[in-house]
Amino acid sequence: MALATLFNQPTFNHRIGLLGNDKLQEECGVFGIFGHVDSAVHTALGLHALQHRGQEATGIVSYDGEEFRAHRAVGLVGDVFSQPDVMRRLKGQAAIGHNRYPTTGEPMLRNVQPLYADLGFGGLAIAHNGNLTNALSLRRELTHHGSIFQSTTDTEVIIHLMATGHGGVTDRLIKAARSLYGGYALVALTKDTLYGMRDPYGVRPLILGKLDQSYILASETCALDIIGADYIRDVEPGEIIFIGQDGMDSVHPFPPIPSKPCLFEYIYFARPDSMMGGKSIYETRVNMGRELARECGVPADVVCPVPDSGTPAAIGYAEQANISFDLGIIRNHYVGRTFIEPSDEIRHLGVRLKHNANRGPLSGQRVVLVDDSIVRGTTATKIVQMVREAGAREVHMRIASPPIKYPDYYGIDTPSHQELLAANHSVDEMERYIGVDSLGFISLDGLYRALGAKKRNDQEPQYTDHYFTGDYPIPLIDLTQGGPSAQLSFLKETG
Amino acid sequence: MALATLFNQPTFNHRIGLLGNDKLQEECGVFGIFGHVDSAVHTALGLHALQHRGQEATGIVSYDGEEFRAHRAVGLVGDVFSQPDVMRRLKGQAAIGHNRYPTTGEPMLRNVQPLYADLGFGGLAIAHNGNLTNALSLRRELTHHGSIFQSTTDTEVIIHLMATGHGGVTDRLIKAARSLYGGYALVALTKDTLYGMRDPYGVRPLILGKLDQSYILASETCALDIIGADYIRDVEPGEIIFIGQDGMDSVHPFPPIPSKPCLFEYIYFARPDSMMGGKSIYETRVNMGRELARECGVPADVVCPVPDSGTPAAIGYAEQANISFDLGIIRNHYVGRTFIEPSDEIRHLGVRLKHNANRGPLSGQRVVLVDDSIVRGTTATKIVQMVREAGAREVHMRIASPPIKYPDYYGIDTPSHQELLAANHSVDEMERYIGVDSLGFISLDGLYRALGAKKRNDQEPQYTDHYFTGDYPIPLIDLTQGGPSAQLSFLKETG
Amino acid sequence: MALATLFNQPTFNHRIGLLGNDKLQEECGVFGIFGHVDSAVHTALGLHALQHRGQEATGIVSYDGEEFRAHRAVGLVGDVFSQPDVMRRLKGQAAIGHNRYPTTGEPMLRNVQPLYADLGFGGLAIAHNGNLTNALSLRRELTHHGSIFQSTTDTEVIIHLMATGHGGVTDRLIKAARSLYGGYALVALTKDTLYGMRDPYGVRPLILGKLDQSYILASETCALDIIGADYIRDVEPGEIIFIGQDGMDSVHPFPPIPSKPCLFEYIYFARPDSMMGGKSIYETRVNMGRELARECGVPADVVCPVPDSGTPAAIGYAEQANISFDLGIIRNHYVGRTFIEPSDEIRHLGVRLKHNANRGPLSGQRVVLVDDSIVRGTTATKIVQMVREAGAREVHMRIASPPIKYPDYYGIDTPSHQELLAANHSVDEMERYIGVDSLGFISLDGLYRALGAKKRNDQEPQYTDHYFTGDYPIPLIDLTQGGPSAQLSFLKETG
Amino acid sequence: MALATLFNQPTFNHRIGLLGNDKLQEECGVFGIFGHVDSAVHTALGLHALQHRGQEATGIVSYDGEEFRAHRAVGLVGDVFSQPDVMRRLKGQAAIGHNRYPTTGEPMLRNVQPLYADLGFGGLAIAHNGNLTNALSLRRELTHHGSIFQSTTDTEVIIHLMATGHGGVTDRLIKAARSLYGGYALVALTKDTLYGMRDPYGVRPLILGKLDQSYILASETCALDIIGADYIRDVEPGEIIFIGQDGMDSVHPFPPIPSKPCLFEYIYFARPDSMMGGKSIYETRVNMGRELARECGVPADVVCPVPDSGTPAAIGYAEQANISFDLGIIRNHYVGRTFIEPSDEIRHLGVRLKHNANRGPLSGQRVVLVDDSIVRGTTATKIVQMVREAGAREVHMRIASPPIKYPDYYGIDTPSHQELLAANHSVDEMERYIGVDSLGFISLDGLYRALGAKKRNDQEPQYTDHYFTGDYPIPLIDLTQGGPSAQLSFLKETG
Repeated sequence: MALATLFNQPTFNHRIGLLGNDKLQEECGVFGIFGHVDSAVHTALGLHALQHRGQEATGIVSYDGEEFRAHRAVGLVGDVFSQPDVMRRLKGQAAIGHNRYPTTGEPMLRNVQPLYADLGFGGLAIAHNGNLTNALSLRRELTHHGSIFQSTTDTEVIIHLMATGHGGVTDRLIKAARSLYGGYALVALTKDTLYGMRDPYGVRPLILGKLDQSYILASETCALDIIGADYIRDVEPGEIIFIGQDGMDSVHPFPPIPSKPCLFEYIYFARPDSMMGGKSIYETRVNMGRELARECGVPADVVCPVPDSGTPAAIGYAEQANISFDLGIIRNHYVGRTFIEPSDEIRHLGVRLKHNANRGPLSGQRVVLVDDSIVRGTTATKIVQMVREAGAREVHMRIASPPIKYPDYYGIDTPSHQELLAANHSVDEMERYIGVDSLGFISLDGLYRALGAKKRNDQEPQYTDHYFTGDYPIPLIDLTQGGPSAQLSFLKETG
Repeated sequence: MALATLFNQPTFNHRIGLLGNDKLQEECGVFGIFGHVDSAVHTALGLHALQHRGQEATGIVSYDGEEFRAHRAVGLVGDVFSQPDVMRRLKGQAAIGHNRYPTTGEPMLRNVQPLYADLGFGGLAIAHNGNLTNALSLRRELTHHGSIFQSTTDTEVIIHLMATGHGGVTDRLIKAARSLYGGYALVALTKDTLYGMRDPYGVRPLILGKLDQSYILASETCALDIIGADYIRDVEPGEIIFIGQDGMDSVHPFPPIPSKPCLFEYIYFARPDSMMGGKSIYETRVNMGRELARECGVPADVVCPVPDSGTPAAIGYAEQANISFDLGIIRNHYVGRTFIEPSDEIRHLGVRLKHNANRGPLSGQRVVLVDDSIVRGTTATKIVQMVREAGAREVHMRIASPPIKYPDYYGIDTPSHQELLAANHSVDEMERYIGVDSLGFISLDGLYRALGAKKRNDQEPQYTDHYFTGDYPIPLIDLTQGGPSAQLSFLKETG
Repeated sequence: MALATLFNQPTFNHRIGLLGNDKLQEECGVFGIFGHVDSAVHTALGLHALQHRGQEATGIVSYDGEEFRAHRAVGLVGDVFSQPDVMRRLKGQAAIGHNRYPTTGEPMLRNVQPLYADLGFGGLAIAHNGNLTNALSLRRELTHHGSIFQSTTDTEVIIHLMATGHGGVTDRLIKAARSLYGGYALVALTKDTLYGMRDPYGVRPLILGKLDQSYILASETCALDIIGADYIRDVEPGEIIFIGQDGMDSVHPFPPIPSKPCLFEYIYFARPDSMMGGKSIYETRVNMGRELARECGVPADVVCPVPDSGTPAAIGYAEQANISFDLGIIRNHYVGRTFIEPSDEIRHLGVRLKHNANRGPLSGQRVVLVDDSIVRGTTATKIVQMVREAGAREVHMRIASPPIKYPDYYGIDTPSHQELLAANHSVDEMERYIGVDSLGFISLDGLYRALGAKKRNDQEPQYTDHYFTGDYPIPLIDLTQGGPSAQLSFLKETG
Repeated sequence: MALATLFNQPTFNHRIGLLGNDKLQEECGVFGIFGHVDSAVHTALGLHALQHRGQEATGIVSYDGEEFRAHRAVGLVGDVFSQPDVMRRLKGQAAIGHNRYPTTGEPMLRNVQPLYADLGFGGLAIAHNGNLTNALSLRRELTHHGSIFQSTTDTEVIIHLMATGHGGVTDRLIKAARSLYGGYALVALTKDTLYGMRDPYGVRPLILGKLDQSYILASETCALDIIGADYIRDVEPGEIIFIGQDGMDSVHPFPPIPSKPCLFEYIYFARPDSMMGGKSIYETRVNMGRELARECGVPADVVCPVPDSGTPAAIGYAEQANISFDLGIIRNHYVGRTFIEPSDEIRHLGVRLKHNANRGPLSGQRVVLVDDSIVRGTTATKIVQMVREAGAREVHMRIASPPIKYPDYYGIDTPSHQELLAANHSVDEMERYIGVDSLGFISLDGLYRALGAKKRNDQEPQYTDHYFTGDYPIPLIDLTQGGPSAQLSFLKETG
C-alpha cells in the first residue's frame, strides 16, 4: 500500500495521534479458502481472528461457480458481515478476504479490498498485504499506456500488470511478480484457482493450512485456530501456490535468496497465539522480556506491562528478575477510532481514554514498566506521568525492541524520520524526555537471541531489521525517484 | 448505456411495472459550465431542471485549478446536493454533471456519472446521455488488450478508448468518436477545457448557452432558464465543442450526413418549456393534439388528458374540436420509486397510486382521453376502467404518437418486442384490449406536420422514427453479434 | 397542533420560504379502518392518497388482537412503508394512520403520530388533524397535576385528558372532548373499537366509508377511491363514531350548533377529486374561476394557471371568458423539501426551482394568470416577473379567494399578520407590489356562490371565513392568555 | 430496570449466549457534574471510563441556563459523542449521563437514559443504575391514576412518582424514594441542582468527587481518574446529595440500617483500577486468588487466567502458589455484540470468536485456569476443551467466587434459576460437566476475608450475598405478586 503510505501519512498521524496511538501500524490481513461449502463464513471467521492486522475496512469475494460475489465495507469484520443476508449471498466454495488498516481521506471505499477486475481471461480478485517500493513508478508507466486506476492501492498495480499481460493466469502472475519490489503477501481468486504468493524475501507472512479437504491461506495461524483447521507450513519466500480442484501445487519463479522476515511481526504485529517461522510468538516475546531483564535489569518492587502489547515481555522480565508481576496500568478496550474533539484545556487527557494507572500495585513502589517499542514517545511520556501521579516511588522503563531509527517501506505505516523519537535522540535524551528514572532497550543481538539465534549475522542478517539499522535489503525505488504526486491527478470525492 | 439496457431489462421492467409506469424511459441528462465562480451550484440547478431525464442518481465533478472534486450519489438532485458541505467542497470554475435514469441491480453506485479517470495527460471526467450500439464489442476488445472496466456504462468505453489513444485530449476524443456507433451526447472536463459532443445523426440533444462570460452545455434549454442563462444554439450533429479560457471553438470531424433527431424528445421526453431544434416543445405537442382532432375526432362532451404527459395534446385537441377541456384524471405527484409490496388481493390497485378518476367532470359524459403514447397498454387499460367506474358514458382514447412497434437502441429504455402492445396487435385488437369505445393514433405524416414539415420524407426521413417504422439509421452492432454476457465476468456486490 | 404552531413559526417560515412555498399549510391527514385483514396496507394506501395533507412524517398503529404495533417515521408514505418487513409486521384487523405536515426543530420524531399510550383500561392510539385553541392552557393544568408530556402535539393533550379521566373509553373521550376548543378531527383505536370524532363546528373534515364489511374513516374521499371503498357520508360536526365487531354506532354529545366548515379545504387543501360536504372539490374550484371571470374579467389572449393549485379555476375562467387556456407556467414536481443553500448572488433564482415560464404561449400575449390565493405575495411577484421576461405583453392576475387578512388558529399554519400581504396592503398596493397590469380577487359572496349558496349569511355564515373577515367562531383561548413558553421547560434533543 | 429484566430475559439470553457471553451483566453506569464550563465533555469522558457498565446505549442531558439539551443514542460512548456538533450543542455548566447495558427488543431507543420530563416545577432529568423490586406494582398504580409511561425503565417510575407529588423537588424526591424497594443509585438534574442518591442498603455504588470547584457524582472512581478529578468519598447508603451554586449538602431521610453493598461489584463488575468502599478492586481480586490458592491449591506447572476478568485472581493465585503465570488463553477484543449467524456445522465455533488457546505455555503442562465466576458453565466448558486440544496434560479450574445458586433482583441481569449451573449441580457434577481434572471455588468466608473481614457475619452479613446464599435483604415485591404483563399493553414499534 505504498501510495496510501506516501500520500496520506501526515493526515493519518494527525488523526490517530489524538488517541494516543503511538504504535507502528501493520497494514493488512489476508485469508483464502478453496473447496469448502461454507467458504465465505470461514473467511469471515478467519478475518475476525486477523482483525488486529486492520480495523478500518474489510471485504470478501467469493465465486459460486457462475458469478463472483463481493461484500466490502468500512467497519469491523463482526459488524460488516453480520448485516442481514450478507453471508447468505456470498455463495460458493472458494473465497478470499482482506482486513484493511486505517488510512485516511476520500478514496477510502474504493480502496477496500479484495479488488476485482474482469480481465481478458475472466474474473480476478486479489487481496494484498504489504507495500511495493516501486508502486508509483509502475503506476505511472501503466497509466501512460492506457491503464485507468480506480484506487490508490498497490494491489491495483498488480491487477493492471496482469491485465496487460499475455497467456494464462499463472504466467501473468509470475510475469507481474517479476516487476514488483517490496514486502508483500497476496491471495488471489479466479474461477478455478486460489493463488497465494509471498515476496522473495518473505518479509510479510503467509501460512498454509487445511480443514478437511479444503486448503487455506492466511496471514497468521490464529486464523486457522478459529475455524479448527490444521497448520501445514509457512508459504516459502518467493513461492507461488496454486490450489484447485486437483489439490495444491506450487512454483518458485525467483532465484533463491536468503529470506528476511519482518522482525516487527515477532515484536508487535502478530497475535501472541500465532506461530510464525516455526516459533510461538508468545514465547519469543516472553524471551525478549527475559533478555531485557538479563541485559538491563534494575532493582524494583513490581513489574508492570504497558497493556496489552507489553504483557508477554513483562511476564518474561518479572520471571527472570524474580520480581512481582502486577497490572499497574488498566486498558480501556472500548476506545474506538474516533472520539470527542477536545477543547484545549482537556487535550492533555487524551491518553487517559485508553489507559489508567491502577493505584493499588503502584503506590510507594519502585516500578518497572515494560513495553514492546517506543515510536514517538508520546504515550510513554503520559503513562509515566500517570504512574508517578499514582504514587510510584521510582519508574523504570524497559523496551523489548531496539530504538526505532528508520522508517519502514515494506508494509508498515511508520511516522516520518522527524517524528521517530530514537531517530533524533540518544537514550539519555529519551530517558529525560519520557521522564523515567532509567530507560533500557533490548540489544539487537539480544533480540536475535530471543528469536533463537546466537546473534545477528552481520554479513547476512537472518531478518530485516532496517528500522533499527537502516539496512534496507529491498531497493526503495519510488523514494529515490522524486515526488510522487506531481504527475497524478486525483479525484477528491465526498459522500 | 447499452450494457445496462441489455442486461437489466427484465428486472427493470418488473420493478417499475408495479407502479403502473408504462412509459418509455429517457436515459439521462447532462450539463456543463466553464468559467463561473459558482460552477457547481449552477450545475446542480441545471441538473434539477433536467431531473425529468433521470431520477435514480446524480453527480457533479468540478475542477478547482488543482484538483478534481466529485460528489455522486443515488437520489434526486435536490436531496443529493443539499447535504451539508457538499456544494462548498465542489469548488472551481468549471463543472459537469449528470442525471441518471433508474436501472437496476448491484452495480448501481459505480455507474453513477460523471465518470472520472486519471489518464496519461491528466484527469478526465465524462458524462454521457444515450446509447452506443457497439459498446459491448468495444468493451470486449478493450478488455482483451488490458483495459479494466469498473462499471457497465457506455461512458467507460469512451474513457478507455481515450486512455489507450495517443496525442492530445482533442485528438483522442476525435479518434474515440470515430469508433462509436449509436445515439449520444456527452460533456467532458479536463484541467483546462470543457468538451461537448453530439453524435453524427444528432439523435440525442445538446444545446449551448451563455451566462455572463460563461459557456454552458445542457441537454435542454430549461436548464438555461433556471439559472437565467441565454440560449445560443443547438450543438450540431457530429460537432465537437471546446470551451476554455480563450472562449469557444468547435470542429466537425465527421463527414456531413442528414441529421436524425429522436422524435420521442418532442413527443414525451423533453420538458414542455424547452426549445429543441428551434421549436417549442409545448407548441409541437399542442399541434399534435390538433392534428389528432383533425385526423380522428369523435363526438364527445369533454376532453381529458392523461396527466401530465398528455396535457398539451389534450389542450390542442379540445381547442381544435371545440370541446370542453377538463381534468378528469388527477395525478398523485408523491409517488416515489418504490411502494408497498402488495398482496395478491390488492395488486389490482397498483395504478391508483398514481392516478384517480375525478368523478365530477366524467359522470354521464362522453369522454375523450388524450395521451402521448401507448407502450404496454397496461396503464391505459386501468385508467379506462377507472373512468368508466366514475360514470363516463363513452370513453374514447386518442394518442399523440403512432403505434410503437419496434424497440429503441439509441438511448431509450424500451420494453422488449413482446411487451410492446402495438408490435403484436392491430388497432382494433388494442381497442378491445384497452376497453375503449374507440382508439385513434396520430398518423406518421400527421406527426411530421405537427413538427412543421409537410410530411415525412420517406427517402430521407427528417427524424429517426424507427420505433414506428423499424427503419434504424444507425447499425445495431452488438445486437447482431450474439449474446453479450458470455465472455464477461461480472461482480455481484452487496452493501 | 397549536403548540408547534405557536413556537416554531418563524423558523418554519424561514425554511420553507426559500423554496418559494407561499401557500397556507394544511396540517394533517388521518385514516382508520376496522375489520379488514389487510388493515395496515389499506391504511398506507389511504395515507398515500392523503399525502398532500402532510409530507413531513407518517405513521400507522395497528392492533393484532394481542398487541399494538406501530411504525412511524419521517418521510413520505411511499418511502416509509415500503421498507422491508414493515407492512408484514403491522398485523391486525384494525389500524389508524396519520400524515404530518412539515414543522421544524428537534422534537420531530416524538411528534410523529399516531400517538400511543398504555392507559388504565389498556392501550390507546390517537391520530389528530387540526388545532386546539386551548392546548397550552390544558397542558399547563395537566402538568401541574402530574401528567408528563413527551411531545408538543395537541394530540397528547387529548390522551392525558383521557388518562386522568374515569370510566370507560367512550365516557373518557366525551368528557375530554368537552374540554377542547378548536378545529379538529381525530381517529382513535383501542383493543376493540375504532373511534372517529369531528369538532362541534365541523371545521376540519372527516368522512365515513365502507369496503366490504369494513368501516373506514378518512380526512377525504380520495382515500376511499384508492382502495376501491364506497363513500357513505361525512361524519357530522360534533359526532363521535364507534366502530366495533358489532358494527357502527355514534353519539352527539354536544348541543347542536350551526356548522362552520373551513373554506380553505374547498379553495386549496382538499384534492380536486375529493367530495366534501356533498360537493365536488374540482367543480367548486371551476365555479370559482367562472365567478372570477364574471366579477372581474379582463380582455386577454390566453388564460394560464399558476400550477397546480390554480388549474381548475383557470379552466373555469377560460371557459366563462371564452379565452384560450394554455400552460404558460411549467411546474417541476421533483422539488423536495430542501435544496442547495444559495449564495447571495443566486438567491433570487429560488422560485425557479419550482416554476418556469413557458415562452411559447406567453410571448407577445395578453395573459391572465389564475391562482387560488395570495399569502405573502412573494411567489406571485416572481412568477409575474418570469412571465414578463418570457415576452408577455400584459399580465393580469385573478385570485380565486378573497384577500387573506387574518391568521388561522384552527389547524392551518398561517404566516403572522405582518407577513400576510393583504393584511397590510390595499388591492391597489398589492397590484403594484406584484407588478401586474391588473389584480382581481373573487368577492366573498362570489365565493359563497361558487359553493352553491346565494350569498354569505352575514348573521350566521355557512362556513368559517375568519381569514377574510376576522370573524372567529371559536374562542382563541391560549392567545388571549399570554405567552406560552414561559412556564414550560423543553428539551432540545439532537440525533 | 426491573421491567426489562422480567420481560426480555429469554430473548436476551438467546442473543448473547451465542457469543459465549457467560457472565452476569451489570446494568448501568451514571455520571453527573455541576459547575464546570465543559460539563458535557467531562460527562462523556466519565461515561467512557464507565463503558464496561453498559455498552448498548448512552446519553447526556445538560442544562445551559435556559434550556435542557440532550443527546441519547444506541452505541458506544466514543462513537455516539464523536458525531459532529454533538458536544458543541450540549452546552451548559451542569450535566448528567448514563451508560446502558444491552437489553433487547423494540422499545430500545425510548429506554435510553437519562430520561427527561417537564414537571410542574420545571424540567427534570434522571439517570439510574439498578433495579426496583416493586417497579411493576408502582407502575400499575400510577397508570391507574392517569400517568402515561413512555418506556419500560424503572427510572420512569421514579419520575412519575415525583410528577404526581407535591412541594419542592427535594421533598418530592424524598417522598418518591420512600416508595421504592430495590438496589439503585441515581443522579438527577434540575435547573439549579444536581442530585445523587443511593438506596438505603447501598447495594449499588455511587461516589463523590471534585474537579476544581465542580462536584462530580459517578458509579466508580475510574470516572474521576479520566478527567483528573479527586475522589472525596462514597455516597452513603440512603443518602441524598444536593449540589448547587452554593456547594454541596446532603440528607439521610431513611432510618439507619446496616449497609449491604453488592459483592459482585468486587468480584466482577467494577473496573480493577476503581476504589470502592475504601478498597482497591484490583487488590481485593488478587486477594481472592491468594485465598483460592490457600483453600484449594493443586500441583501444577502454570497458572493461566481466563481473560480479562480472571487475570487479577490468577496473578494472586500464581504468586501465592509460587507457580509460573502465563497467558494461556488469548482474548480477541474486537468482538462486537453481533456476529455471523452460524450454520449448524459451525455453531460450535462460537466461543472461539472471543478466546483462543495459546499453545506455547499450555502444551504438555499441568494448567490451573482461574476465572472470577461460573454462571451457565458454557464458556468454561469450551475453554477447557480448547486448552486440552492445545496439549495441556491436566486442566484444573479455580473460581474466585462461590457457586452462584440464586438470581439477582437488585440490578444484575442473571439467567433464570434453571440456567444457573450451580443452582442445579453439585461441585462434582460441575467438574464433570466442564470437563476439568479438578474444580474449586473460593469459600464464602474466604471471599469475605479477601475483602478484609475475618469472616461472614451470619447474623448480619456485611454485604448482600444472596446469589450464593438465597438470603435476600430487600423484599422481592413484584415477584411475589404474580405475572407482570397481564394488565399492561405494550406497543411493538419498528423502525
